Amino acid sequence: MAALTAPHNDGSAPSLSPLIDLLAADMARVNETIIDRMGSDVPLIPQLAGHLIGAGGKRMRPMMTIAGAMLASADADARDAAIKLATAVEFIHSATLLHDDVIDESDLRRGRDTANALWGNDASVLVGDFLFARAFELMVETGNIEVLGQLAAASARITEGEIKQMEITGAPDTPLDAYLEVISAKTAVLFAAAAGTGAAVTGADKARSDAMYSYGMELGMAFQIMDDALDYSVDAASMGKNAGDDFIDQKITLPVILAWQDASNEERGFWQRTLGEADFRDGDLDTAQAILTRHDTIARSIAVARDYVARACEAIAPFGDDRQTAALVSALIDAARFAAHRDS
Amino acid sequence: MAALTAPHNDGSAPSLSPLIDLLAADMARVNETIIDRMGSDVPLIPQLAGHLIGAGGKRMRPMMTIAGAMLASADADARDAAIKLATAVEFIHSATLLHDDVIDESDLRRGRDTANALWGNDASVLVGDFLFARAFELMVETGNIEVLGQLAAASARITEGEIKQMEITGAPDTPLDAYLEVISAKTAVLFAAAAGTGAAVTGADKARSDAMYSYGMELGMAFQIMDDALDYSVDAASMGKNAGDDFIDQKITLPVILAWQDASNEERGFWQRTLGEADFRDGDLDTAQAILTRHDTIARSIAVARDYVARACEAIAPFGDDRQTAALVSALIDAARFAAHRDS
Repeated sequence: MAALTAPHNDGSAPSLSPLIDLLAADMARVNETIIDRMGSDVPLIPQLAGHLIGAGGKRMRPMMTIAGAMLASADADARDAAIKLATAVEFIHSATLLHDDVIDESDLRRGRDTANALWGNDASVLVGDFLFARAFELMVETGNIEVLGQLAAASARITEGEIKQMEITGAPDTPLDAYLEVISAKTAVLFAAAAGTGAAVTGADKARSDAMYSYGMELGMAFQIMDDALDYSVDAASMGKNAGDDFIDQKITLPVILAWQDASNEERGFWQRTLGEADFRDGDLDTAQAILTRHDTIARSIAVARDYVARACEAIAPFGDDRQTAALVSALIDAARFAAHRDS
Repeated sequence: MAALTAPHNDGSAPSLSPLIDLLAADMARVNETIIDRMGSDVPLIPQLAGHLIGAGGKRMRPMMTIAGAMLASADADARDAAIKLATAVEFIHSATLLHDDVIDESDLRRGRDTANALWGNDASVLVGDFLFARAFELMVETGNIEVLGQLAAASARITEGEIKQMEITGAPDTPLDAYLEVISAKTAVLFAAAAGTGAAVTGADKARSDAMYSYGMELGMAFQIMDDALDYSVDAASMGKNAGDDFIDQKITLPVILAWQDASNEERGFWQRTLGEADFRDGDLDTAQAILTRHDTIARSIAVARDYVARACEAIAPFGDDRQTAALVSALIDAARFAAHRDS
């Protein structure tokens, strides 16, 4: 287990490729279902939804669902319901992205103009609502009301997380626990529900669906923490979004929380003026990055993400002994390590 | 049937009171469930949702669900699932209102400040999403996946209707069919699904749930047409909203469509400048109302609403012969007539 709690100790470069390869056939079916089910006789819906969903992204959440289904069954036909569920999960996620971009007034996502920048806020709100409703139609088609309940609960939790995030916006003295609660609700719960229900809908026993739920939850935490850490550390081109978005949006994320804890009075004044009062001046982003570097809080945030990755790996490690699922578990562990890889 | 196809011929003033009285005990349970289930440990959610839902309104949609349940069973205990479903229906409706007010940039609803005016667009978008997710949690608790599917489909149709409405905004030459399609999707489908699923979840046979579905659909059409007609004919105080909202929002509604059909070139120029190009000048609302009066299109719109009311009454009339449901059917007919009453 030593390698799991410190997943980078073996020195190999982690990769998402083994998981992508294993899931490829099912994910092709998910992509077909996505295209098919975003259809409407209102042309704007497939246009706008297609702009967002067609832009790609790693499709991490539906991959969780398919991975859960594969942990439950090696028979591709047995995974039909999971294909629909994975599509529903991507639609729920896409709906939240459309609404997020309206709320954040973002004009760039994954390196392209946002839907709200191209079609306006009204269309983004409504197409988000459509995708959310369509997600529930897809879930109904699986005939599994328990799984539907879990994803409905996750959807409610996401919005609670987004509202809590709004409430801590502009408060650089936000406690660590409040931040962890926000990212758990807004991000990790959907990863967890996606993975757990993918297993459950495919007939997994409780041990396997619980393991996938935990794997999704821990990976989701790591995924969001890395996203928050990298927002301050890389340029817009490689992230596919504007540099320092979180800073300008006064979002309170882990690198800032850690820096606030160690801050001098002068530094606290800086965070208060910028993140607290939105009084931004030329060079402020450079200053923010210099303070984070001084306290090493980007690297420390990545270390926190790696702790979550280790727990994700522990959750599914027991199924690595099963010949049927050994390759999948190995790929999931590699994917988790990749999520907290410095150059990801 | 003569009285049904011309529901005002008997000269009595129609009233919603008999239906309200019959449903009162169940609606009190719905109201308790609404308060209970809008709860969250994020205080903003019950605050904002309570502002909207607590402001009242007639609760027409959950009344449809309860009426459907009563047509299915006289046993109050048998209607437990319908109480949850009625709450879900009100939450879906409230979510669309919150999002509508963001889209329309409204600052007044039911005579009070809108949630977006008080808490901002971001909070309204997110709390709308929360109510929508919570609605599905409530539906899951009924354990009836078929009913859930019908309300999921209705929810998708609502957003399609709203998007179509957005697309015809500013086009005074919109054909009548396009308008009817919009109001069917954005309003009538939820009335229909609310009424039909209320019956179905309470164990009604197909004839009764189909009848309630049709009643809801026709009543929903009448309800929206009356709302659109009265927007031009009464002052803000009695409507609880701003006078001439639809005009300023460039919304294309039945009185305008009928007036466009009969318009002189000069009148078409007026509609094109105002509704088409949003070039509004002092006195334009008065001019609009004068043109509508010249072509009698408010009264003609109300006549169209009455045709829908007649069909709503026809749909449920057969169950008026049943001693068990005679009072309910009579109350539903009175409520439908009230919906298209001039002073409603």
